[in-house]
Amino acid sequence: MRRALFVGRFQPFHLGHLEVCRRILAENDALVIAIGSAESSHSLVNPFTAGERYAMIEAACAEADLDRVAIIPLPDVNRNAIWVSHVRSLVPPFEVLYSNNPLPRRLFAEAGFEVRDAPFHERARYEGTRIRHAMVADGDWEHDVPRGVARVIREIGGVDRVQMLARSDAVDKP
Amino acid sequence: MRRALFVGRFQPFHLGHLEVCRRILAENDALVIAIGSAESSHSLVNPFTAGERYAMIEAACAEADLDRVAIIPLPDVNRNAIWVSHVRSLVPPFEVLYSNNPLPRRLFAEAGFEVRDAPFHERARYEGTRIRHAMVADGDWEHDVPRGVARVIREIGGVDRVQMLARSDAVDKP
Amino acid sequence: MRRALFVGRFQPFHLGHLEVCRRILAENDALVIAIGSAESSHSLVNPFTAGERYAMIEAACAEADLDRVAIIPLPDVNRNAIWVSHVRSLVPPFEVLYSNNPLPRRLFAEAGFEVRDAPFHERARYEGTRIRHAMVADGDWEHDVPRGVARVIREIGGVDRVQMLARSDAVDKP
Amino acid sequence: MRRALFVGRFQPFHLGHLEVCRRILAENDALVIAIGSAESSHSLVNPFTAGERYAMIEAACAEADLDRVAIIPLPDVNRNAIWVSHVRSLVPPFEVLYSNNPLPRRLFAEAGFEVRDAPFHERARYEGTRIRHAMVADGDWEHDVPRGVARVIREIGGVDRVQMLARSDAVDKP
Amino acid sequence: MRRALFVGRFQPFHLGHLEVCRRILAENDALVIAIGSAESSHSLVNPFTAGERYAMIEAACAEADLDRVAIIPLPDVNRNAIWVSHVRSLVPPFEVLYSNNPLPRRLFAEAGFEVRDAPFHERARYEGTRIRHAMVADGDWEHDVPRGVARVIREIGGVDRVQMLARSDAVDKP
Amino acid sequence: MRRALFVGRFQPFHLGHLEVCRRILAENDALVIAIGSAESSHSLVNPFTAGERYAMIEAACAEADLDRVAIIPLPDVNRNAIWVSHVRSLVPPFEVLYSNNPLPRRLFAEAGFEVRDAPFHERARYEGTRIRHAMVADGDWEHDVPRGVARVIREIGGVDRVQMLARSDAVDKP
Repeated sequence: MRRALFVGRFQPFHLGHLEVCRRILAENDALVIAIGSAESSHSLVNPFTAGERYAMIEAACAEADLDRVAIIPLPDVNRNAIWVSHVRSLVPPFEVLYSNNPLPRRLFAEAGFEVRDAPFHERARYEGTRIRHAMVADGDWEHDVPRGVARVIREIGGVDRVQMLARSDAVDKP
Repeated sequence: MRRALFVGRFQPFHLGHLEVCRRILAENDALVIAIGSAESSHSLVNPFTAGERYAMIEAACAEADLDRVAIIPLPDVNRNAIWVSHVRSLVPPFEVLYSNNPLPRRLFAEAGFEVRDAPFHERARYEGTRIRHAMVADGDWEHDVPRGVARVIREIGGVDRVQMLARSDAVDKP
Repeated sequence: MRRALFVGRFQPFHLGHLEVCRRILAENDALVIAIGSAESSHSLVNPFTAGERYAMIEAACAEADLDRVAIIPLPDVNRNAIWVSHVRSLVPPFEVLYSNNPLPRRLFAEAGFEVRDAPFHERARYEGTRIRHAMVADGDWEHDVPRGVARVIREIGGVDRVQMLARSDAVDKP
Repeated sequence: MRRALFVGRFQPFHLGHLEVCRRILAENDALVIAIGSAESSHSLVNPFTAGERYAMIEAACAEADLDRVAIIPLPDVNRNAIWVSHVRSLVPPFEVLYSNNPLPRRLFAEAGFEVRDAPFHERARYEGTRIRHAMVADGDWEHDVPRGVARVIREIGGVDRVQMLARSDAVDKP
Repeated sequence: MRRALFVGRFQPFHLGHLEVCRRILAENDALVIAIGSAESSHSLVNPFTAGERYAMIEAACAEADLDRVAIIPLPDVNRNAIWVSHVRSLVPPFEVLYSNNPLPRRLFAEAGFEVRDAPFHERARYEGTRIRHAMVADGDWEHDVPRGVARVIREIGGVDRVQMLARSDAVDKP
Repeated sequence: MRRALFVGRFQPFHLGHLEVCRRILAENDALVIAIGSAESSHSLVNPFTAGERYAMIEAACAEADLDRVAIIPLPDVNRNAIWVSHVRSLVPPFEVLYSNNPLPRRLFAEAGFEVRDAPFHERARYEGTRIRHAMVADGDWEHDVPRGVARVIREIGGVDRVQMLARSDAVDKP
C-alpha cells in the first residue's frame, strides 16, 4: 500500500484543499491529512482549534465520499532539524510528501523521502487568508468551502470569533 | 449527534479495547479514540509510536467494520489542571467520557462532562502489560490482539524492538 | 465574596493602571492583579522581571491604601485554547474579568465567564510604551507612575537598563 | 527592609507552616511565601492547584493577622542549575532563605545568599502527607490546619477530590 | 587560568569571527566559542545545524592553529532573566564575556561578570547576512570564510539548502 | 574521515571512560564525547553541571594526550522517537555509535547507523554510582578518576556538594 502525506494548517479547510486531496488519492492508495500548528487557535491567522479543524475535514471528506483518509493533528516543534522524525512518530507510515513549500520539501528530501508538488487547482481563488478576510468583512466565504465545513463553522460560532479577533487591539496578550 | 471519547495508551490495541469500542458505539453515534502519551515510544511501557498505534487501531477497526471512529494522537501535558482543555482543543466535539480511571473521571467531571464506566470485558485477560510481557518471553500474544494489529506489529519489527528494550541495562538514557 | 481579575504586563505599573484597580475595587469585594508575560524581562517591550513588577505594584497599592488585592505572576502559555484553565489554576477563585482586549474577552466569554470593560482613565496619557520611550529619552516618566513605582525603578537601576537595551543592535540574541 | 523567602508546596498549608511564617516575620521585615510545584494539582501528592493553595494561605494569614506577606506561585523548572535565577525573577527582592532542605540550601548558598533553618515547630505532627492520608481515611485533618484553610478545602470539595484520586488505579494517565 | 566567552550564531563562521577569536586568545589563556540558537536550522537566518556549525568552527580553528578553544552548542532559552545561569551551567568556567551586543553585556554585567568589546575587524565586510545573501545569489561567499568552512559547506550541500530555503513561499510552516 | 560517537552522563568522567575513549580512537579517526542529561545537576545521580563535566573531560583528555576529540553537551529530549535526529543536529557528523545500552543501540540501528559495543575495561570497578557513594562516605574516589578530573572536582567543591545532596530529606523540591 502506498500512502501519501499532505500537511496544511487548514484555517479553514477549503475547496482547493479538497481538490488536492482528491488528486492525491487518485495517485495513491491512501492519504494522511496532517493538521499543522495543531496547538494554535483563537488568532486571526489560526482562528480554529485542531479539534474544530478535524471536524471540518471529517465533514468535507464524508460529503465528498473520500475514504482511505487519516486525519492527524500535528503540533509544531519549532525545530526544523527534528521535524521529519516528529512527523513520522505521530503519523501512520507513508511514502511520499505532497507540498509546494520549499521548507518541508527540503527537510523530507534530506531525509530520503519522495517529494511531489501539491496539485493545487485555482490556488489564487481558494486561499485561507482570503477566506478569513471575507469572514471579517461579512463577505461571501461559504462558496469557497465544502458545505460541511460551513456547517461546522456556523455551529461553533466561527464567524463571530474571527470578527472579534479582528477587533483585537493587542493591549495584553494572553 | 452524540460522540463519546475513549482515551488509552494502546500499547498495543488489544481485543479488550476493541470490545470496549464496540460497546461504546452501540450507545453513541460516534467515537473518538485518543492515543494517550502520543510522544512516548521505544520504552518497555510504551514501545510503539503514536503513528504505529494509529496504524494498529485503523487496521483493527477496518477488519471489525467499526466506522464512525476518529483516531487522534494525544500528547501528554503533565499538568492536570489544563488537561481537559488540552484534550478538547485537539479532539472533535464530544459529549461523554468513558473511563475507569479516577483521575480522568475526576477532571472531566469537574469540567462538567458526563462520565461513564468503560465497559471492559475480561479485563484481566486483555491487558497491555501482560501482552508486552508475552512478547518479551516469546509467548503467545497474537491471540489477544486483532489480526490487523498483529500484522502491523510484525511489519514494524515490534517484537524484536520490545525484546531489545527488555535487555536494556539503563546505563545511559537517551 | 465577588473577586475580579485584571491582567496586564505592567511594564511598568502606571497611574492609569492604579486608577483601573481603584474603580474595579469600587465594584467588587476583591481584586487579582495578574502580571502577564511573567517570564519576560530585559527587552525593550518587557524590561522588568515579574518579581520587580510585583514590588512596584505592591508599593503602589500600599501608598494608595488599596487592600483586598492579590498580585500573581502569570507565565505565558502561547496556546490560546488552554489559556483560561492555565489562568484559573494559578489564581485564586474569581468571578469576572476586566479587559478591553478582544482576545482575553473572547476566551473568557467562551469559557462562560462574565467579562467587563476595563475602566481606563486618560488612556492615551498613561501608556506603557510612552513611558518606556520617556525613560530611553531621559524624559519625564516619573509623573506618570505612582511614587512607589518610581522608587522601585530607581532602586533596581531600571532607567539605566532600559537605556542599555535601547542601544541593542541585535547582533546576537541570548 | 529585610525580606525572607520561604518555599513549600503547601498541600495543604497547615498550622506548622503558619508557625514558621510567624517566626520568620519576628526576625524579618517581610516574607515571601512561594508556592512550589505551582503547575501540579489533582494528584495524591499535589491535590490542590496553586490558585486554591493561594486562597488557603491568604485566608490563614488574614485570620492570624499576618501582614507583610507576599504569596507567589512558583512553577517547577526541573533544572537545578537555573533554579535560583528562576526564583529571583518571579519573586520580589529578598535577602535570606529559610529552608531545612539541603538542595535549596545548597543552591542558594552557591549563589551567595544567606540561608537559615526553617523554624519548624512539632514537625512530626504537622506534616502534609499525614494530613492528606487523614483526608483519604475520613480522619481528623481539620485540627491540623488553620480554620480558613479548612473552609477553602470544603468550598472546593477538596476532601472528595483527594478521596477520588486515592482510588486511582493508574490505568491511563492523562 | 583566564578563560573568555564569545557567543555568536555563526551562520556561518567567517573570517571576521576568526579574527575576533585570535584577538581574544591573545589577551586570554583560553576561549569558549558558544554556538547560539543551537536548536535552529533550515531557515534563511539560521540555515545550518549546530553540529554543522561545530564542524565549520573546528575546521577553521585547526587550519588557523588556534588551540585552547572549547566549542559548545548553546540552545536558546527565551527567558532573559535566567540566560546567564543557563550559559554558566553548559559551559566550562570562564571569567570574561566578549560581546558588542547590549543585551548579553547587560545580563552578564548584572550578574557581576567582566564584559569587554568584541574586537571585530572590518565588521561591515564580514557579516553573516551578507554572506548568506551571496549564497542565494550564487555570488562570491567563499573568500569571506576560512577554507575549512567553505569545505564543510560544500560537503553538506549548504549552498543548495540556502537557495531552496530562499524560494520558500511560507505557505505551510513545519 | 571516520568519526565515532560515545554518549554518557559522566558523573564523573572516570578511568573506565578514559580507557573506552582510548580504544575507540584506536579504531577511528576522531571521537565525539556527548555529555548526556546536560541540563541535569545538583542531584545525587547527576551532581555536576554539563559545564563542570566538560572541564573534567577536557582535563582528562589533555593529560592523556587524547586529541581528535569533540566534547558536546547534549540536553535530554525525553522523546525517544526524535532522539537520533536531536543528537545528529547538535553533534558534528559521525558514522558509528559505541554503546552497550540497548535503547541507544536500538534507536541508532533503526535509523541505519552502525552500532558497536563500547569497549569497557574493568566495568565493575570504574562505575559512576560507586564513585559518588565513595564521595558521600569520604572514601577513596580519587584513584578511580584521572588526576585532572580530581582537580576540577576539588576546585568546584564537588565532594562537599555531593555530601550535602546526600543529606537531602526531600521536604521541598526546587
